[in-house]
Amino acid sequence: MKGVAGKLLVVDLSKQAVETRELPGDSLRLFLGGFGLAAKLAYDAIPKGADPLGPENSVAIAPGLLTGTGIPTASKTALAFRSPLTGTFCRSVAGAWLGVALRKAGYDAVLITGASEKPVALVVEDGKARLVDASDLWGLDTRATRAAIREKFGEGFRTAVIGPAGEKLSRIAIVDCDGRQAGRGGGGAVLGAKKLKAILVKGTGDIPTADPERIKELAKKWNEVIRDHPATKADMGYGSGEFLDWMNRESGTFPSRNWQWGFFKSAYERAGEGKIELDPYYWAPKYSARNVACPGCTKPCGKLFVIKEGKYAGTEVDGPEYETLYSLGGCPEVASIEAVAKANELCDLLGIDTISAGVTVAWAMEAVERGFLKPEDLDGIDLKFGDEDAFLKVLERMGKREGKVGELLSDGSKAAAERLGKGEEFAIHIKGMELPAYDIRGAKGVALAFAVSFRGGCHLTAGVYGAEFGGSWWKFEAVDRHSVVNKGFEVKLHEDLMALYDVLGICKFSRHIFFLEGLPELVAAQTGLSFSAGELLTVGERVYNLARAFNVREGFTRDHDHLPKRVMEDPIPEGPSAGDRVSYEELQVMLDDYYEARGWSRAGVPLKAKLVSLDLPELAEEVGSGKVG
Amino acid sequence: MKGVAGKLLVVDLSKQAVETRELPGDSLRLFLGGFGLAAKLAYDAIPKGADPLGPENSVAIAPGLLTGTGIPTASKTALAFRSPLTGTFCRSVAGAWLGVALRKAGYDAVLITGASEKPVALVVEDGKARLVDASDLWGLDTRATRAAIREKFGEGFRTAVIGPAGEKLSRIAIVDCDGRQAGRGGGGAVLGAKKLKAILVKGTGDIPTADPERIKELAKKWNEVIRDHPATKADMGYGSGEFLDWMNRESGTFPSRNWQWGFFKSAYERAGEGKIELDPYYWAPKYSARNVACPGCTKPCGKLFVIKEGKYAGTEVDGPEYETLYSLGGCPEVASIEAVAKANELCDLLGIDTISAGVTVAWAMEAVERGFLKPEDLDGIDLKFGDEDAFLKVLERMGKREGKVGELLSDGSKAAAERLGKGEEFAIHIKGMELPAYDIRGAKGVALAFAVSFRGGCHLTAGVYGAEFGGSWWKFEAVDRHSVVNKGFEVKLHEDLMALYDVLGICKFSRHIFFLEGLPELVAAQTGLSFSAGELLTVGERVYNLARAFNVREGFTRDHDHLPKRVMEDPIPEGPSAGDRVSYEELQVMLDDYYEARGWSRAGVPLKAKLVSLDLPELAEEVGSGKVG
Repeated sequence: MKGVAGKLLVVDLSKQAVETRELPGDSLRLFLGGFGLAAKLAYDAIPKGADPLGPENSVAIAPGLLTGTGIPTASKTALAFRSPLTGTFCRSVAGAWLGVALRKAGYDAVLITGASEKPVALVVEDGKARLVDASDLWGLDTRATRAAIREKFGEGFRTAVIGPAGEKLSRIAIVDCDGRQAGRGGGGAVLGAKKLKAILVKGTGDIPTADPERIKELAKKWNEVIRDHPATKADMGYGSGEFLDWMNRESGTFPSRNWQWGFFKSAYERAGEGKIELDPYYWAPKYSARNVACPGCTKPCGKLFVIKEGKYAGTEVDGPEYETLYSLGGCPEVASIEAVAKANELCDLLGIDTISAGVTVAWAMEAVERGFLKPEDLDGIDLKFGDEDAFLKVLERMGKREGKVGELLSDGSKAAAERLGKGEEFAIHIKGMELPAYDIRGAKGVALAFAVSFRGGCHLTAGVYGAEFGGSWWKFEAVDRHSVVNKGFEVKLHEDLMALYDVLGICKFSRHIFFLEGLPELVAAQTGLSFSAGELLTVGERVYNLARAFNVREGFTRDHDHLPKRVMEDPIPEGPSAGDRVSYEELQVMLDDYYEARGWSRAGVPLKAKLVSLDLPELAEEVGSGKVG
Repeated sequence: MKGVAGKLLVVDLSKQAVETRELPGDSLRLFLGGFGLAAKLAYDAIPKGADPLGPENSVAIAPGLLTGTGIPTASKTALAFRSPLTGTFCRSVAGAWLGVALRKAGYDAVLITGASEKPVALVVEDGKARLVDASDLWGLDTRATRAAIREKFGEGFRTAVIGPAGEKLSRIAIVDCDGRQAGRGGGGAVLGAKKLKAILVKGTGDIPTADPERIKELAKKWNEVIRDHPATKADMGYGSGEFLDWMNRESGTFPSRNWQWGFFKSAYERAGEGKIELDPYYWAPKYSARNVACPGCTKPCGKLFVIKEGKYAGTEVDGPEYETLYSLGGCPEVASIEAVAKANELCDLLGIDTISAGVTVAWAMEAVERGFLKPEDLDGIDLKFGDEDAFLKVLERMGKREGKVGELLSDGSKAAAERLGKGEEFAIHIKGMELPAYDIRGAKGVALAFAVSFRGGCHLTAGVYGAEFGGSWWKFEAVDRHSVVNKGFEVKLHEDLMALYDVLGICKFSRHIFFLEGLPELVAAQTGLSFSAGELLTVGERVYNLARAFNVREGFTRDHDHLPKRVMEDPIPEGPSAGDRVSYEELQVMLDDYYEARGWSRAGVPLKAKLVSLDLPELAEEVGSGKVG
């Protein structure tokens, strides 16, 4: 296939060996790149029953098909692996220069297998790769690791590194890609278990493209569209935090106080008529030093948050984005934006996922509130909702797996409740992954999407909140977010589309710019192949089913497509979504619809016929169901 | 696109003009050929609200993509038009030499528009076409028409002709293709209204093929598969009539006595332990002179039925096939196979659809039984279930639209009940099309498929009876035919697959030989393009949605996806499926599932997002729904 190098770098850490292989044409045609290619490589490489933290787990890394081509916002690189947080298949995506450099170095993907005995780094330079000792980097935080790499290897390397959390096998550990995170599902722990501290890539070649002139034309065209698009101004001005007021005050679906509330009640009460501190309308003018972009993005949503004075002076972090405003703000009820920024920086440096980290601490806060945890269980820290000092102390111990706090909380809320032997009823996770910043009690389609997401509680797998909250979006008229009727196809379509975005490497914040219709011409220019919109969507569907098949192989089924007890039993108490919850029966109705839309059995297993018709005949044999009823 | 000529013959009968046009590459890529191409041409050509029997209706004719290439059983040619029987979009398919000749003459499709004032014939010879007077053919039956054509134009023409029924605008009139019928939906009436008596085609060129050597290899390979396949022996020995014993005695789902019974009770009572006369195990050895094949078929299911002695001496008919054993046998309770063969011949010669014709007469028989009709309403004929003489008399009058019988019955059962002003409650049709030979009360998935089929009561749109009755079929384990659970995706998948078979021109009786997996290599050899199985299935889905969009444009919606009252209210009284019916509530459950699987609204309207993702953006704007709930 044109527009790709056709090369896979295979790294066997057990043997300390690297090898370059040809990628089979079929895989490229059916999976294209990015999440698709990474998913296929990971599925094939990881045996059934693999310990996520054992040498038998593998991590596949693949830049999106369009990443680095100059098509605006095509910036993403996907990691695929078995998650230590959930036990499921996991995709973790970052706006990573690493992926751009990989392509320039001549590789479409990297597959990391086995485990090293001592810390190593993988160094890739223009078609060559080697493993080097990285004992001197071990223990460093992410920023210090990058600095040490520059010092040791010189300038010009793009990197992926893990922080202390990954080294300590925290199941919520991230992979840091030059300050952008492949955040969810514990990819950092998988690399930590393999003792792979860092990946360094330098590439000076051209990224292959079937029709370079056409790509340039299209880049120009779409840059103009983006320049004139109303969302661009918002992204560049305030970033994703702009969702906050909408979700919080307008919809009443910004979960706070560990989902005891559907909006950040105490902050609004304090703010009165003014903006609450977490709102970027308040903080961006004050603290945002400049925009921070993913590679090739012309509408950067990142904000470099710099605190020069006061208690948190010296804090410098790319963020906080909307999700983080929830997880490190609303959920633990921390109303001070400076404290949220500090917490964000702490998570990034130690290398833990801000969503999982904040929600896990909020769980602990509620456990304290209920008397399930005492200060003596938490290294003497008196952890309470809204206490920013205690919050920051706990976060730091979690990231370092220090003391009783680290022992209890470093692996997320599900593990914490298991260790404590109670509190599962207010642990806000699905399949072990902590929920992001949408109170799904008030958005039934989003609840379904979270329940079925292959990696657990995830807003990015379907991205269906746009349809549920957005009035009208793409071809959908205003969807009734309080209704459970007909949500199956709605969620399926969004999942397939978002999977396709991750295949192509295009930012999901651009889904309301390229939609589906904008994609075929991009793929045609890049590959020289004519894919219709429907055919491209089928690629997304194929990848999605591959991920589900992995989970089915590991024993995941309908019973695991659950919702947290709180979501099903405790209605949102006040605000615009007051009274909303998702009952068990409502969930079952939506699951039936969804499985029907997906071509899966009532047990949630892809039908053999569906897998065969997605060109996955081996999977049909391995995990497919023949039973329609 | 390679493997096609790229030429469309446009015939404007109002202007008496013919013209050759280039087919747009996009249409070929997205619709390939056969039903796909015909559907696209018809959709674009027929304006909203067109009178099916007016000049504004069009008939598009297209041979399947593989028809005539030598791939075994790839023999079909599709017609698409607005049906005068149902008012819906209609596909009508025949194993037609006409299509093979069209391709050899350099055309991929013919579009017939307008209407002639006097009878004409279209004559196509190797890239040239003309309209000629056909007044001398008008009034002739189909066999006589073919003979007159040979006489007048010489040997070597492949034909499509209409009989007296088509001329008289019978809404159940067929198009006869050299003795094989495009049977359902009244295509013969549409041609009759256009006064197009016949189409004659002679082609001496080669059928374009991207890779002729590869096609030869594949033809050889698949011929060997077919030769060794157990179904082949059955097809060649007894034809589709072999289903009869299975459906009748084993399943109790062979409707008889106008669906008062789920099996042919009286015949079995008479036969005792022996075979009933309708069973080909009984009649084939006695009456089958030889097998009759569609073009390129190496497992011919057709049987030339010849009666040399007795009351029906001189009868010579290609048939009866399974459906006809029901419609001209079980449904009117005619137990004599000689009478059924005679009735079959009558239908073929006059040019009416055997299914619609027999079921309509059975309706009249029940109307007589209930006292709604008297002999004086039927030209003095004393019409009773099981009376073969009266049956044949009525059939003949229907086919000729003669007398009171013709006036009442020639347009099918729905029109008959409307004209009589009563009897709709036992009229066995959906959307006006009479039901085929599967008692859907005992096969819920088939019931759903019939209810939603775009052309009304049709077994070929989904062909899902294989899954419901077949124990295991393809990737489906034994489906519970008595259950309504999870039938949506099952039906959708079969519809998409069967649409694809009609696009490629492969016989649906080969679906258990090629399945889906066998198709990509055939398409690749023919077109030089690499379509995956999933992409091919998307072509089928695209075509299916186009047909639905046509219906939606004409006001068809969920309310029209109904079942006959008898199916919903009168359980099968005896036999293996005794007690089975499909309640109104069960139908609603299945419709919800089905629409979800299809990506349609609860009203049965394709969602805009679905149509866009099937590369039908104009249809999304024209008829698509934005409402998910």
